[in-house]
Amino acid sequence: ELQLNLEQIEKGGYDHFMLKEIYEQPAAITDTFRGRMLVDEGIIRMAGIDDHLDKFLNARRIIIVACGTSWHAGLVAEYIFEEFARIPVEVEYASEFRYRNPIVYKDDVVIAISQSGETADTMAAIKLAKGQGAFVFGVCNVVGSSISRETHAGAYTHAGPEIGVASTKAFTTQITILTLIALKLAKHKGKLSNSEFRAYLQELERIPAKVAKALKSNEQAEYVASQYKDASNALYLGRGYNFPVALEGALKLKEISYIHAEGYPAAEMKHGPIALIDEQMPVVVIATKKGHYEKVVSNVEEIKARSGKIIGIVTEGDEEVKKLADHVIEIPETLEPFTPLLATIPLQLLSYHIAVMLGKNVDQPRNLAKSVTVE
Amino acid sequence: ELQLNLEQIEKGGYDHFMLKEIYEQPAAITDTFRGRMLVDEGIIRMAGIDDHLDKFLNARRIIIVACGTSWHAGLVAEYIFEEFARIPVEVEYASEFRYRNPIVYKDDVVIAISQSGETADTMAAIKLAKGQGAFVFGVCNVVGSSISRETHAGAYTHAGPEIGVASTKAFTTQITILTLIALKLAKHKGKLSNSEFRAYLQELERIPAKVAKALKSNEQAEYVASQYKDASNALYLGRGYNFPVALEGALKLKEISYIHAEGYPAAEMKHGPIALIDEQMPVVVIATKKGHYEKVVSNVEEIKARSGKIIGIVTEGDEEVKKLADHVIEIPETLEPFTPLLATIPLQLLSYHIAVMLGKNVDQPRNLAKSVTVE
Repeated sequence: ELQLNLEQIEKGGYDHFMLKEIYEQPAAITDTFRGRMLVDEGIIRMAGIDDHLDKFLNARRIIIVACGTSWHAGLVAEYIFEEFARIPVEVEYASEFRYRNPIVYKDDVVIAISQSGETADTMAAIKLAKGQGAFVFGVCNVVGSSISRETHAGAYTHAGPEIGVASTKAFTTQITILTLIALKLAKHKGKLSNSEFRAYLQELERIPAKVAKALKSNEQAEYVASQYKDASNALYLGRGYNFPVALEGALKLKEISYIHAEGYPAAEMKHGPIALIDEQMPVVVIATKKGHYEKVVSNVEEIKARSGKIIGIVTEGDEEVKKLADHVIEIPETLEPFTPLLATIPLQLLSYHIAVMLGKNVDQPRNLAKSVTVE
Repeated sequence: ELQLNLEQIEKGGYDHFMLKEIYEQPAAITDTFRGRMLVDEGIIRMAGIDDHLDKFLNARRIIIVACGTSWHAGLVAEYIFEEFARIPVEVEYASEFRYRNPIVYKDDVVIAISQSGETADTMAAIKLAKGQGAFVFGVCNVVGSSISRETHAGAYTHAGPEIGVASTKAFTTQITILTLIALKLAKHKGKLSNSEFRAYLQELERIPAKVAKALKSNEQAEYVASQYKDASNALYLGRGYNFPVALEGALKLKEISYIHAEGYPAAEMKHGPIALIDEQMPVVVIATKKGHYEKVVSNVEEIKARSGKIIGIVTEGDEEVKKLADHVIEIPETLEPFTPLLATIPLQLLSYHIAVMLGKNVDQPRNLAKSVTVE
């Protein structure tokens, strides 16, 4: 009973750790950039990067190794690094990388992402990359974890303890830290002007407030959840920066509600998955105003023509998708590369409410461990 | 009626074009390497490569752009190119690549894969890459197609006309041609000795006969299909060279039976999808003897512990997986990089029989077009 009471206190009034952690995201993202992003000075200061700046600026490639949700953060980072810093990025499943004699050059920078810092496959990938002479940088949440000790340098996400097995604030803070790195490198490489750089910092500083605003969709997410909780399948579609968010949204639903959800880059739908679409199939479409909005609207039209149920994640004030979709959930407008930080929020809430309505153990889903410390 | 009769003649005694094309694979693969692979001389001769050998040998990276099944062939090729030719490969969804300001260097070689040679997104990706100065090589099946004309050079798969919307022989012949290229570059780069090279050629020459042998699993695949035809979901798992085969197997089931199947690299299972596994969930596991067999066996044990139904694709004579799995389908033994050409066969047959049993239109599944010539 003492244990139970302690847990209730730790949950801080929320029914589950997962919900608490979803709501902690504005603070967690702020903690991630606090002391690093000096908006007024127009500076990003990160010791782990500054001390090894030449490695990053001269990197032939950045190879990101990770598993699960961290792998999705890596995919978002691929788009952000390539766009801002113009360094080619390759994202690898750590489990595949470690076993396949990968090509690693001495001037490659490897970024390993792991919330716990204990993920076995990621750890093995790090050792392999180090053995081949690459510089390895860790992005972990748990301070002093094995991966933070095994890497040459790194940056903590400072998200605070994450108890829910399904990762939430770890994901958004991983994206935040990787965005900081990409912006910093872009600045040093002269790929962004001072004023562009400052504009990005200013907008990033506004993100926690916008995440807080996105969290106000909670009731609406709960209503949508009530409509689809009995679905046996779901598709999640996104393009560009939000393609990995679609993967992550689907993973959340899999993890805690045991509904078979799958993410896809929206345009791949026509190459197979569209055959699955009928009136039984809910399709969650990230259709924010930036990011090839017109293309995504045309995907939405195709789904509608096949009687699929459409849940649109849209920019506030959207009109076009609202007309087509069965439900829309609005998120605040932001610069396109930052939309994943907002689009993720309603997807987390949606999966949370579905799992609760289905009576699932949200914080400790069956078969899953918080950190996968064995192969 | 005349049309019907013509179609019956064209189907050559098979109930569907798809089945005919599955059975054509030994001949199609032979046609792909005929005149190119001179086993006795120890030579691979391909004009499209020989005429631009310096481009390939000095390639900074190979970027593969494709959609759908061709994208899966590209993933197999990534593993094969990196292993044999030691050139870093990046595989991109054509639809994502074309819209995201990707980094393309003048010394990158872009390989575009498309059965029809008309895929709109792939075509747009080619134009973008050419605009940035890269050398673009096409792998198409249809002679004289738009992509074959738009690329700097290329190689046809010579699979013959593919009528079934769900791609089968196009996939295995794409893998074959990409394997030939990888082996040829490995030889020129001195990454394979003459005797190793010759051993690979000799084994590749045996592949059509082994595919023919794998096709003998047809009745068994039909039996397994009868056991799982009413499943609403399925997972497909593979590692290494066979991870993309798992994706392709799942896509086949999606396309023609409308069952929601999803492929995963086996080790990622623990990072989420394992939560889906219960006695209702069939899991197809590619567990061939080469390729981290022990690791896959341990994945199979985990699935069994959670009461999942296991269909193992195993090397003939396998004992270990047979003990654990509910069903196994055997394929002949071969060198590890060539296993995708064999492991694909029972997965094609499995999806074919399920679709037939469910009364679906196998050759023209709902919502799908043979070639996606619009965005």
